Amino acid sequence: MYFDKIDKVKFEGVDSTNPYAYRYYDKEKLVLGKRMGDHLPFAIAYWHTMTNGGDDPFGDSVNKRNWYGDNELDTAKKRVDAFFELLVKLDVEYFCFHDVDIAPQGNNLQEFMSNLDVMTDIIKEKMDETGIKLLWNTANVFTHPRFVNGAATSPNADVYAYSAAQVKKGLDISKKLNGKNYVFWGGREGYETLLNTDMDLEEKNLASFYKMAIDYAKSIDHLPQFLLEPKPKEPTKHQYDFDAATTLSFLQKYDLMEYFKLNLEANHATLAGHTFEHEIRVAAINNSLGSIDANQGDLLLGWDVDEFPTNVADTTLAVYEIIRAGGLGVGGINFDAKVRRSSFEMEDLVLAHIAGMDTYARALLSVEKIIEDKFFEKILEKRYHSYNNGIGKKIIDGETNILELYEYALELNEIENDSSHIEYVKSKLNDYLV
Amino acid sequence: MYFDKIDKVKFEGVDSTNPYAYRYYDKEKLVLGKRMGDHLPFAIAYWHTMTNGGDDPFGDSVNKRNWYGDNELDTAKKRVDAFFELLVKLDVEYFCFHDVDIAPQGNNLQEFMSNLDVMTDIIKEKMDETGIKLLWNTANVFTHPRFVNGAATSPNADVYAYSAAQVKKGLDISKKLNGKNYVFWGGREGYETLLNTDMDLEEKNLASFYKMAIDYAKSIDHLPQFLLEPKPKEPTKHQYDFDAATTLSFLQKYDLMEYFKLNLEANHATLAGHTFEHEIRVAAINNSLGSIDANQGDLLLGWDVDEFPTNVADTTLAVYEIIRAGGLGVGGINFDAKVRRSSFEMEDLVLAHIAGMDTYARALLSVEKIIEDKFFEKILEKRYHSYNNGIGKKIIDGETNILELYEYALELNEIENDSSHIEYVKSKLNDYLV
Amino acid sequence: MYFDKIDKVKFEGVDSTNPYAYRYYDKEKLVLGKRMGDHLPFAIAYWHTMTNGGDDPFGDSVNKRNWYGDNELDTAKKRVDAFFELLVKLDVEYFCFHDVDIAPQGNNLQEFMSNLDVMTDIIKEKMDETGIKLLWNTANVFTHPRFVNGAATSPNADVYAYSAAQVKKGLDISKKLNGKNYVFWGGREGYETLLNTDMDLEEKNLASFYKMAIDYAKSIDHLPQFLLEPKPKEPTKHQYDFDAATTLSFLQKYDLMEYFKLNLEANHATLAGHTFEHEIRVAAINNSLGSIDANQGDLLLGWDVDEFPTNVADTTLAVYEIIRAGGLGVGGINFDAKVRRSSFEMEDLVLAHIAGMDTYARALLSVEKIIEDKFFEKILEKRYHSYNNGIGKKIIDGETNILELYEYALELNEIENDSSHIEYVKSKLNDYLV
Amino acid sequence: MYFDKIDKVKFEGVDSTNPYAYRYYDKEKLVLGKRMGDHLPFAIAYWHTMTNGGDDPFGDSVNKRNWYGDNELDTAKKRVDAFFELLVKLDVEYFCFHDVDIAPQGNNLQEFMSNLDVMTDIIKEKMDETGIKLLWNTANVFTHPRFVNGAATSPNADVYAYSAAQVKKGLDISKKLNGKNYVFWGGREGYETLLNTDMDLEEKNLASFYKMAIDYAKSIDHLPQFLLEPKPKEPTKHQYDFDAATTLSFLQKYDLMEYFKLNLEANHATLAGHTFEHEIRVAAINNSLGSIDANQGDLLLGWDVDEFPTNVADTTLAVYEIIRAGGLGVGGINFDAKVRRSSFEMEDLVLAHIAGMDTYARALLSVEKIIEDKFFEKILEKRYHSYNNGIGKKIIDGETNILELYEYALELNEIENDSSHIEYVKSKLNDYLV
Repeated sequence: MYFDKIDKVKFEGVDSTNPYAYRYYDKEKLVLGKRMGDHLPFAIAYWHTMTNGGDDPFGDSVNKRNWYGDNELDTAKKRVDAFFELLVKLDVEYFCFHDVDIAPQGNNLQEFMSNLDVMTDIIKEKMDETGIKLLWNTANVFTHPRFVNGAATSPNADVYAYSAAQVKKGLDISKKLNGKNYVFWGGREGYETLLNTDMDLEEKNLASFYKMAIDYAKSIDHLPQFLLEPKPKEPTKHQYDFDAATTLSFLQKYDLMEYFKLNLEANHATLAGHTFEHEIRVAAINNSLGSIDANQGDLLLGWDVDEFPTNVADTTLAVYEIIRAGGLGVGGINFDAKVRRSSFEMEDLVLAHIAGMDTYARALLSVEKIIEDKFFEKILEKRYHSYNNGIGKKIIDGETNILELYEYALELNEIENDSSHIEYVKSKLNDYLV
Repeated sequence: MYFDKIDKVKFEGVDSTNPYAYRYYDKEKLVLGKRMGDHLPFAIAYWHTMTNGGDDPFGDSVNKRNWYGDNELDTAKKRVDAFFELLVKLDVEYFCFHDVDIAPQGNNLQEFMSNLDVMTDIIKEKMDETGIKLLWNTANVFTHPRFVNGAATSPNADVYAYSAAQVKKGLDISKKLNGKNYVFWGGREGYETLLNTDMDLEEKNLASFYKMAIDYAKSIDHLPQFLLEPKPKEPTKHQYDFDAATTLSFLQKYDLMEYFKLNLEANHATLAGHTFEHEIRVAAINNSLGSIDANQGDLLLGWDVDEFPTNVADTTLAVYEIIRAGGLGVGGINFDAKVRRSSFEMEDLVLAHIAGMDTYARALLSVEKIIEDKFFEKILEKRYHSYNNGIGKKIIDGETNILELYEYALELNEIENDSSHIEYVKSKLNDYLV
Repeated sequence: MYFDKIDKVKFEGVDSTNPYAYRYYDKEKLVLGKRMGDHLPFAIAYWHTMTNGGDDPFGDSVNKRNWYGDNELDTAKKRVDAFFELLVKLDVEYFCFHDVDIAPQGNNLQEFMSNLDVMTDIIKEKMDETGIKLLWNTANVFTHPRFVNGAATSPNADVYAYSAAQVKKGLDISKKLNGKNYVFWGGREGYETLLNTDMDLEEKNLASFYKMAIDYAKSIDHLPQFLLEPKPKEPTKHQYDFDAATTLSFLQKYDLMEYFKLNLEANHATLAGHTFEHEIRVAAINNSLGSIDANQGDLLLGWDVDEFPTNVADTTLAVYEIIRAGGLGVGGINFDAKVRRSSFEMEDLVLAHIAGMDTYARALLSVEKIIEDKFFEKILEKRYHSYNNGIGKKIIDGETNILELYEYALELNEIENDSSHIEYVKSKLNDYLV
Repeated sequence: MYFDKIDKVKFEGVDSTNPYAYRYYDKEKLVLGKRMGDHLPFAIAYWHTMTNGGDDPFGDSVNKRNWYGDNELDTAKKRVDAFFELLVKLDVEYFCFHDVDIAPQGNNLQEFMSNLDVMTDIIKEKMDETGIKLLWNTANVFTHPRFVNGAATSPNADVYAYSAAQVKKGLDISKKLNGKNYVFWGGREGYETLLNTDMDLEEKNLASFYKMAIDYAKSIDHLPQFLLEPKPKEPTKHQYDFDAATTLSFLQKYDLMEYFKLNLEANHATLAGHTFEHEIRVAAINNSLGSIDANQGDLLLGWDVDEFPTNVADTTLAVYEIIRAGGLGVGGINFDAKVRRSSFEMEDLVLAHIAGMDTYARALLSVEKIIEDKFFEKILEKRYHSYNNGIGKKIIDGETNILELYEYALELNEIENDSSHIEYVKSKLNDYLV
């Protein structure tokens, strides 16, 4: 037992004063015709929760953790125990990890691969025991010094090969652990200055990399949903997968839309100058909504703060987009969130996930009210009604042309628009927030 | 004569102390095998130079201009005279305008169309007289109240039709004046809140709009290069053509890449979180570099300041990308720039364009030195040399797969990367600046 | 009757479905021992509500208003009627204005002064009739072209004198209308480039300006609370009153703290990189919290959007600071907020103010719950308890020195800090939101 | 020898092609009547140059350094040798350090103090040998976990005492090494959320802390110039010393202006929304310009990038302010700059400092041209000439009042302002850049 002061966290309802209880997250509750747990397939991120030390660019590790063993492999094993204990205690069904999170890298690639075999055996056993599932895994091809100039966009072909090897193993692990998705985050795929960068070559190499991954996945008969995770900057000055639209332009150019969807993160959205709901909408209307990295940014800070989500209004807008898009399919809601450095106790991991899960649960309950009330739906219907018939319908049906529109416009009297009553609309949102 | 205190502005060389002379812009000078004037096909923007009053959200019009006549049409005519006088005095060969810049809108669309006929007759005559050419024209479908909720993405089909009518006329004018390009800037094509927005429908309508424009252009046997102009926000909270990559994702989705390139603006790039050179590179490697709106932003200010470009280093990086991309083709360098509000005299229009043109000339001369010295070119060659043979070449040629790369990587010793010496590289740029 | 479709807006309670009713703002309700109306002394801003046309830098006026008369003075008079009708219908007790909002400027200063006399007579009568009071007035010394280079910091002494004349009249009007506060907002007090700016001279002139205003106010025996309103930029690149702390540094340097407090605005705070609650706290601990300009910004947009406040969580944090500071004294809560351009109907003015007032009312009710529950108060007590005795108390009492602390520290074992449990703390806020 | 591939870096003039030579920095050259070396008292920062590993939030240490010994103390000693070798080879006369940079912290404060004694003995010897001087030292009271909630503003009195102990020792060291300045940077002096923060108490404690430091410095008969270093955020969400003006407001409030000046950093300025030259001007006109942390930010990135300065135009504007302020007094120009992560070789430290020093040298030579040409000086004279006599002079001399100004303004015809010709002015800067 690692979280020995913590009992299994249960739904106790809104009136509970127990900090270690869910007050809104009620897994079995039916919401909009589906279990809350199915709407909100939460996952815990290995890195922030298990390996993050709480250091920042000006501060050393501060987190108090009790799973340090005699050597790296021993620590890795204890971490698995602690992690599954936490998953079980929080009643979370999914998890996500980078290869380097779960196994020591050893002295060379062969040792790393071998350590991964050992560790994934252990993890698989834990999964079988607990029923907990792998939402996605990924290869960390950005932390080690060899990736200093990129991985699949490195100017060094050896680094490219090395990255491919990690992905190959990642897909093997995905098969072994029955991963639903497989993520690529290109933290070093980008540039520091164009003066030394052949962007075209690098992006072509990146596309080839993905195609090889697809081919390999097919060859082993395990094709998870591939996900790209947009982020505009940090650590690299400019990252190729800047935002959802940029990533889609790449996928279209290289004919990869069939195999890839997007893993969208709230804080990455805001760093790119967008709301989270914007990124979800963009993905949704391009049939590319894959999965969610749940966290929140601080718009007064210019870096990836990865806070646990506590803002119910913002989360409601995101969940509303997800629900309107028909849900996340095989995707999930991964807490790519870390406790603030001043929350350094073990219990903070529990409190923070409760905060995040209850925030999403409140958001879902808010969305239920929104959808049942149809207030916003009716606004949309009314707003676009002119496209239901007449010249509007012809536009929608592609049955007009510019000359006809010209003639039509010449005959128009001054056009009347409707007020958006946007202050009323925006304040109305408050009435639905749980 | 409107600019009666100003003589024709000439190249007088770097030692001139005449504020009304070019000290770097020497149109006939051969640079990298081409006339400077051909490298830098400058255009003046009708709106900022002729119709802008110098007002801002907290201040009234301040600019002193001497072309105001007895009525709107009279003013419009005097403006043409003043404009061509300025073009001739500055020795600028191209110009750009919105429909509303050149003609009063009258009381209805018919009057507007008729005014446009009158004014374009006058402009055509001036063009014939002076040899000055139309770089591009465009329809202003964002200023009038009818576009309050968008134009080609308006929820109101009548507004859509009205916008189409303006574009139809715009294409007729383009034919009449032999415009090289035709621009779409979607200042109101976007949304204020997703709660009242059907983005998918709006973007589909936008694509149909463009297709109708293409069809019409073909039908009148005048197909200028169509250009989209990305901008992320302002006036609309979110604009659909956020940046180059977003715009390319749209063009690809709706199969419009054949007809459209991009008109890129420095200040729009920075508002989107990019450098100007980034946007140019993105366009270039997607064969979509169309034309340039020359100005500069202020990165400490969050709106479109449209300053005249005076930063030689930044402009050099932009021109370097243009030259490396093979130039602008039928595009040009349009000063989408306005004098600061405190530069309210007529002469400031002259001084500001001289500042901008000399800045671009200095940049071009700087790029000449960069290219001749091959310093950055050699860095690129050295940096990517590992892709010239062995496993690197196989990657480039698509002749390997992930398993081979895995086996290859397993045999690698620790990988050596080269230092980027990035401080040295970045400081080296200074040595080329003219 | 101008707002003829609107009846007097009443509190109807949370279950009302009437968009033209308050559902939270219940003026007479006792909250924390005081009438809600006294906690929240709302004011309406003449400029945004009565004179703003809904134009933006890319769009013409769009607002439909029915108070336009045959000439400027006639319009000004009708506006007063419409304004007081709105104040009465919204049951708002205070208002604020710039001199130019209420009276035409005529052809010279004398005409302007005379128009102000006429209009303030009319306004005074309306005030007497209705009991509505003047929260503050101010001189608009930024819109007219003469202020292009500043007002009290203008390099032109005539402009300085002109500004002083407007302020002199403003103080006369303040006396006539019994204004509680008098505001200075320095929209043009700043610089575009330091290359042409003598900041020291300009700030000295500004300080002299304020001192003359104080002297004059004393001389007419009417000394309202003087307020400076910080804003970092826009329209000017850099404004001298950047934020609360900057403004306080100026007031201290020139020995003006006695006469001045701060008028803080939410959107100005965020433009300066702060939260609104931060600015309020800074003012409060410097005994300088004067009044509030209520609105909200959009942190993804880089300009002053002046939205009506609809975010209950953010507003709660602001009201919490106000209440903890002991309230606003003679200050108030002025809606320095404008309807979005797409809300162009007269009714939107009503709907928007209801949205704003109910948002503040919800915030106040939330703060009541926070204060009664003492959750955050207890955190503070616990967090700083080490300063209640021992070495901590000596520090607070100024009874130690660095040598003693050195000796003390040498004897310390490793220091234990308490976790902030910050995720738990931040999510707890949700439980109080009404 | 640690930098064994590097010879002493010499001034070789602009035509040198040796990357390891100064081409502009010519220490003995007379510029504006003073040695260039005296205008530009460069210092190297121990932390970025000697202890920084090149890690970032997503990447491990990558820098190749050859001074790692058998244990921490051994490494510390070798570092001193390497550091002074670098200082000598670069011909840099000053250095700066945090206590933790130079000595291992051991197992407790006593060991740390003792290690500091050992290491400062060694450093002193090196200083005597080489003539290199200490620009400033400081206490690192932000990296260790004990400072997780602040140092001199910690809610934990023990942490406060511990910080005081470090400062006490820092002042002893300053005396021992004859430091010219002593710096306080409050990286953890601020807050994460106001909900758990007593800002007033924390700032009072901070002021007491400084007063105790002053008292101690006096008591040991060594009072260096004390410097505060403003930074708005990072690592802490909000830092108390947000910018120059905020810091001055604190110093005034607590009557500390006599003992403190400011240590200003370029990247901190831009993070706060200012230009570097703005911060210098603010300090200068408040007689508080102390010293400079030379680096540059990237305005498209929202964190402290601490790049070596390579932008000549920006640096010229900063140096212009310094020269106009009369120079830095006992302050210096400390390269608080780190090589990019991809510049991981030892030689990059040399190349980067050369880049930075040549950039400042170019800037100084540019400023010489500016000052000798008097272009900007004449603009200033002309711009403010109205304050030289008449009503303007009365304003400056404090010999008028608001009534007189009112009467004066009533008689004015429409006021004429001068155009700023700002585009011409800004482009003129290019002509001076070396």
